[in-house]
Amino acid sequence: MQLSPLRIEPIAGYTPTIGRLVGMLTYARSTTLAAVDGLTLSQLDHLHDAESNSIGALLAHIAAVERSYHVLTFEGRLLSPQEEGLWLPALKLGADGRRALRGHPLDHYLEELAAVRRNTLETFAGRDDAWLERAVGPAPRINAHWAWFHVAEDEINHRGQIRWLHSRLPKESVS
Amino acid sequence: MQLSPLRIEPIAGYTPTIGRLVGMLTYARSTTLAAVDGLTLSQLDHLHDAESNSIGALLAHIAAVERSYHVLTFEGRLLSPQEEGLWLPALKLGADGRRALRGHPLDHYLEELAAVRRNTLETFAGRDDAWLERAVGPAPRINAHWAWFHVAEDEINHRGQIRWLHSRLPKESVS
Repeated sequence: MQLSPLRIEPIAGYTPTIGRLVGMLTYARSTTLAAVDGLTLSQLDHLHDAESNSIGALLAHIAAVERSYHVLTFEGRLLSPQEEGLWLPALKLGADGRRALRGHPLDHYLEELAAVRRNTLETFAGRDDAWLERAVGPAPRINAHWAWFHVAEDEINHRGQIRWLHSRLPKESVS
Repeated sequence: MQLSPLRIEPIAGYTPTIGRLVGMLTYARSTTLAAVDGLTLSQLDHLHDAESNSIGALLAHIAAVERSYHVLTFEGRLLSPQEEGLWLPALKLGADGRRALRGHPLDHYLEELAAVRRNTLETFAGRDDAWLERAVGPAPRINAHWAWFHVAEDEINHRGQIRWLHSRLPKESVS
C-alpha cells in the first residue's frame, strides 16, 4: 500500500489552506489503512483486554467522528437525537461499542471510511479558506480549521492505538 | 491544565501558514502534557508488557523526534554519528529504549520537551511560508511543511498510546 505524497502544499481543486488540510487528512488516512491492511474479521473483533476497544470499533469510531463533523461544520448544527442514537456506540466506544461494533469484515469499515471521506472532499471543494477560518455555528469556541485538524488528530491518536493492538494480536489468529 | 485555543489560524509573530502549523503543534503538545500530568517516576518507568515502551520513553521519543527535525529542516543535514549515538534509543525505542530511558521524574521530560519546542518556535519566527513549502535538502521527497506536520502526527500517535497505557497503570502505583 502506497502512502500519500510526503508534501503538504496547495492541491488543485481546493483553495490553498483547504488543500494543505486535505494533504494532512489524506496522509493520516493512508497510514490508518496501512495499519489495518489484511486484517481478518476475528482480528478486527479481537479484544486485547476487558477495557479495550477492538480495531474494528476504532475504525468505526474514525468514520463516525468524521461524519459528526460533517453535521457540525458543513450543516452547522448539532447531531439530531436520531443520529446520536445511531452513532453513539461508535462515537463513545467503551462498553456500548464492544457490544454493537463487531461481526464485520474489513471491507465494511473501509467502505464506510471511503464514503464519509468522499463527502468531506466534495464539500471542501465547494468551500474556501475564509470558511475554514470561520467559527463553527453550534460550537463558536472552535473554528472549522481546528474542527478538521481535530478529525485528523483523533484518527492519528487511534491509529497509534491500532498499531499497538495490531502488534499484540494473538499469534494463532495472524493470517 | 488548560488546552490551547481551539482555533487554527494565523498567529502574530509567524507568517500565516507557519502560524497555523504552530497552532496544531501547540494543541497537540497541550494534549500530551494533559495526558501525563502528575505521573510519578515509577508510573513513567512502568512497562505494560515485555514489548511495551514506558510512558517516559515515549515522552523522550517525542522530544528526540522534534530535535531530529531541527537538524533535518533547520540545519539541512542528516544526523551526525554522534547525534545518532545519543538520540537513537529515544528515536528507535524498543529494547534499547527500555534499557536507557528510565529513572527520570516527569520534570526531566517536561524540561526537555520545553527546550526543544523553544528552539522550534524561535526558528519558525525567522522563517516564512515559502520556506515551509520548500523541499528538505537531505530528504527532497518531503517538504518542510510535511516534516513539521509529521512531528505533530508522530506525537499524537504516541499520545494515543500514552492514554491507553495510562488507563492501565497498576492500581497500586496510581498517586
